[in-house]
Amino acid sequence: MHAPNWKWFIEYTHPSQAHMYGIERYVYGGRTKYQYVEIFDTEFYGRCLVLDGKIQSAEYDEYIYHEILVHPALLLHPDPAKILVVGGGEGAVLREILRHPSVEQITMVDIDREVVELCKKYLGNWHQGAFDNPKVELLHMDARKYLENSKDVYDIIVVDLTEPLDDGPSYLLFTKEFYNIASERLAENGIIVMQAGSFNPHFIECHAAICNTLATTFAINRSFYAFIPSYDTSWGFAIASHKLDPVKLSADEVDKRLAERGIKELKFYDGETHLAVFSIPKDIREAKEREKRIITDNNPLITY
Amino acid sequence: MHAPNWKWFIEYTHPSQAHMYGIERYVYGGRTKYQYVEIFDTEFYGRCLVLDGKIQSAEYDEYIYHEILVHPALLLHPDPAKILVVGGGEGAVLREILRHPSVEQITMVDIDREVVELCKKYLGNWHQGAFDNPKVELLHMDARKYLENSKDVYDIIVVDLTEPLDDGPSYLLFTKEFYNIASERLAENGIIVMQAGSFNPHFIECHAAICNTLATTFAINRSFYAFIPSYDTSWGFAIASHKLDPVKLSADEVDKRLAERGIKELKFYDGETHLAVFSIPKDIREAKEREKRIITDNNPLITY
Amino acid sequence: MHAPNWKWFIEYTHPSQAHMYGIERYVYGGRTKYQYVEIFDTEFYGRCLVLDGKIQSAEYDEYIYHEILVHPALLLHPDPAKILVVGGGEGAVLREILRHPSVEQITMVDIDREVVELCKKYLGNWHQGAFDNPKVELLHMDARKYLENSKDVYDIIVVDLTEPLDDGPSYLLFTKEFYNIASERLAENGIIVMQAGSFNPHFIECHAAICNTLATTFAINRSFYAFIPSYDTSWGFAIASHKLDPVKLSADEVDKRLAERGIKELKFYDGETHLAVFSIPKDIREAKEREKRIITDNNPLITY
Amino acid sequence: MHAPNWKWFIEYTHPSQAHMYGIERYVYGGRTKYQYVEIFDTEFYGRCLVLDGKIQSAEYDEYIYHEILVHPALLLHPDPAKILVVGGGEGAVLREILRHPSVEQITMVDIDREVVELCKKYLGNWHQGAFDNPKVELLHMDARKYLENSKDVYDIIVVDLTEPLDDGPSYLLFTKEFYNIASERLAENGIIVMQAGSFNPHFIECHAAICNTLATTFAINRSFYAFIPSYDTSWGFAIASHKLDPVKLSADEVDKRLAERGIKELKFYDGETHLAVFSIPKDIREAKEREKRIITDNNPLITY
Repeated sequence: MHAPNWKWFIEYTHPSQAHMYGIERYVYGGRTKYQYVEIFDTEFYGRCLVLDGKIQSAEYDEYIYHEILVHPALLLHPDPAKILVVGGGEGAVLREILRHPSVEQITMVDIDREVVELCKKYLGNWHQGAFDNPKVELLHMDARKYLENSKDVYDIIVVDLTEPLDDGPSYLLFTKEFYNIASERLAENGIIVMQAGSFNPHFIECHAAICNTLATTFAINRSFYAFIPSYDTSWGFAIASHKLDPVKLSADEVDKRLAERGIKELKFYDGETHLAVFSIPKDIREAKEREKRIITDNNPLITY
Repeated sequence: MHAPNWKWFIEYTHPSQAHMYGIERYVYGGRTKYQYVEIFDTEFYGRCLVLDGKIQSAEYDEYIYHEILVHPALLLHPDPAKILVVGGGEGAVLREILRHPSVEQITMVDIDREVVELCKKYLGNWHQGAFDNPKVELLHMDARKYLENSKDVYDIIVVDLTEPLDDGPSYLLFTKEFYNIASERLAENGIIVMQAGSFNPHFIECHAAICNTLATTFAINRSFYAFIPSYDTSWGFAIASHKLDPVKLSADEVDKRLAERGIKELKFYDGETHLAVFSIPKDIREAKEREKRIITDNNPLITY
Repeated sequence: MHAPNWKWFIEYTHPSQAHMYGIERYVYGGRTKYQYVEIFDTEFYGRCLVLDGKIQSAEYDEYIYHEILVHPALLLHPDPAKILVVGGGEGAVLREILRHPSVEQITMVDIDREVVELCKKYLGNWHQGAFDNPKVELLHMDARKYLENSKDVYDIIVVDLTEPLDDGPSYLLFTKEFYNIASERLAENGIIVMQAGSFNPHFIECHAAICNTLATTFAINRSFYAFIPSYDTSWGFAIASHKLDPVKLSADEVDKRLAERGIKELKFYDGETHLAVFSIPKDIREAKEREKRIITDNNPLITY
Repeated sequence: MHAPNWKWFIEYTHPSQAHMYGIERYVYGGRTKYQYVEIFDTEFYGRCLVLDGKIQSAEYDEYIYHEILVHPALLLHPDPAKILVVGGGEGAVLREILRHPSVEQITMVDIDREVVELCKKYLGNWHQGAFDNPKVELLHMDARKYLENSKDVYDIIVVDLTEPLDDGPSYLLFTKEFYNIASERLAENGIIVMQAGSFNPHFIECHAAICNTLATTFAINRSFYAFIPSYDTSWGFAIASHKLDPVKLSADEVDKRLAERGIKELKFYDGETHLAVFSIPKDIREAKEREKRIITDNNPLITY
């Protein structure tokens, strides 16, 4: 028997659009130095992590978000060894990266130590112990400063940030200047991949602007997307590099590489899924073409 | 300036999940012989049609639903001439079918005359005059009875029904018995296509059961889907035939056929979109395989 | 059988407090020159009138509001003949005043002709034909201008206005300057009575400020109140005069006067109710004493 | 600065009526043997206690409920010494009773030990240490069984129970049989007082039935009521005895007795408040007269 639905989390995506999630049990709520954190259990999506009022991931479908953020990039690279994760507090990005046997070192830079501690404590089904893996190095600092000062070179940079809210911690990690810095820290075959905003055609300007901005730095850049049930929307991702193009990977090649690497446990991603997520509906393609905005430090992206 | 958001339409998809739509202007509300009809304007999705508390289509994104329901089937058929539409009250299915120049005759059977009259009056942006096209014949009767008594043979049957609610008008049009009757009225190259329930992995049993049931009659049957923003979810469709397989149509072939038929106005559907909507993510594929249910008149499908 | 509760009117009284009313049938919505008007039917409270998002009165309990606004003042006056109504669009204030046989003339000044027309059309259970009574004169103009230019003298002024919202039509009718003007147009035994804001102890500052402001002009001023179910709160009223004090009326005297005037149809008000509504709980009395604010044209009262 | 209002407690009082409370901080949630307990902080009402989805009391206005439940009865009695409290888990009933210097012994019987423990821990502003007073004896058992087996005689019985929900712990404490048992355990001058349901005229049947049922046992029984802001409604109480009538207490006599007993800290109750709460509006009086129901063990009262 379930607890009754008297308590609701209401997430507004627009002044006239909202989603109501029945809360079964409240687990945690509090303000860190950077953001307001809430963790609660729902009957429908299991445990949920909410930062600054925006749902970040839900127990029953986080596999979709985290598999799709990680595997297209790591599969595309022939031999990913050194990985940088920007953000990614839940630890599920680490979990997915660690499935690739060639990975030697993961540096995760998440500015909010308190959020990561809360995830370690309450989101065991997400990280599954990944934080304890000896390949993982965890830093709590501004990722942009880290990259500016680092001399390390990465095969893959995975950017898993909250949406750029007005007073949130992440809006300077979505700019042309940041992508330039990131590009300098990527190896020749290097790839950057990131969550990149709603894929709802009504909200596509943010995603389009991120893609435009990546294109100022990277010769190859592609949109992809997946429907995330707990977000109530299709969500966009962006992948960019100087040399490697995920659209050239066939479904068979994806399945072959997964088999070669011995990765069998994925629930969402495989060859056919690769085809699905990189095939973009016409309305979105056309909306992306119409949007010309470039995001800069002086003209940053702020979402609702 | 917009009207203030004091009035909300709240659609529950589960006792603990709901979506709130701010109502800008209420246009119509009333009960027909078969269902409760509401039409209102929202700032975010424009005008909305709601039947028995379920949103059916919204002005700003109905193109996605109606293009994807109609064009994969009509493109797949080399020469669709005679079409049966079951349901489809808004008239947007007619509008899309009429883009195909080979179409000679469309019979639309929608049981609820009052709903169709309301759509004619209030949903002009949907039907765009399609009801007045001389190729269109409109009947108000039970579609199953119509098919049982008809001797006509159709190239395509498009089933555009409301979800099978407990006391709603449509639940006997989702059964094995109905598909058998439909099969007998299809030409050799004939195709049946339908909306087929939520594609949210948590709710996939309904869609899977519809596919299983189609498979008892049709050698070829395929799932496809699209994210419909105003539904807050990815929505499933099913297409079935004895001979023609949409998965064998390449993106280039889709674009070629659209060009040959002179169809240029589509906003959502083209070759790349075809690839997207027929590539099924792994989680859904596996969930479909697990579900064994066959829907019959004695054991019908009823959704929340 | 009732229509299902998919549509809700949500009235916020504070950013963290709201009430949800299930809408059974939407009757009217539109903007007049002065305010946004909505009329809808609810299962629980019957028909409701909403102005600028605030519920004004509901069919099933408007009797409480309108009886209590009118009868204490008219009973207190030994012989009320000439009455001014400021606002009062629904016509229910007229209906109640007309029960007093001594009344000879009622002038009603409501700035919003369109609202009054809508009330005449849709709120028949409120006005019950009162607008057609030959004793009633209806003017559509600014009530303050009317009083400034008028030479008429009234026995009673009933002020039945919407709350003073920022951009609403009524905030200059709650100031010291307005009460001075009103006082000059009252006969020696004259009485002014008005709705005067929420009686929730958390919101009592508005009511207290209105009382303080009345006290700058009138020697006698009293708070009274009633619980209005459709408001979800106890609501305050204020009555003021130079000579007559309602607190000196005993319950028996109220019942005697009602009988003498032949008024038998009241549902809410009688002698015992008079005692109830003029006996103020200690917390409210003390909160009123703490509040020192005087409302002026330069420092007007604006509510949430 | 306050936490943002993303989380809401929604209390339905009817399928088409609900109130939304913004939750600032969630303190506790869990099921005891008898009921589901939730404690959270709101910006507007401070800390709130919710049992089985019904708000029981709120920090900022619990003084109204608890003063009005306790003091009319204790003031009416010339010398209350031995008191029984049925329910009353928050400890605020104890706090108020202990203000009367003649009180020698309070026995509190609350079936739900876990709720009382939670109140001790989290609701310090309610009980203010009252549980530790040596005059207080606390028992956790069924109050009806306790009374059946007890030989003690009480001056006052205060019944502070949750509403009689279908599967809740309290519905057999609202019946004629229970009042008979209680009557036998009252001293000659004894008084029983209880919370007695909503005073909203639309919901008055419950209150009326409780009064009717008390009248089968007690010669004197009176309704009284107060507007409880956090309940969004006027709430009813009932007091009954064989000899003493609270309506015969004048406001002056109430103030005199409070002074004699040295009780100065009350925020809500005094002589004028006594007059207010025992003066019943006409609509409620008439609705009470129409209701004939007697509540019995075989035909118990169950509220929504």
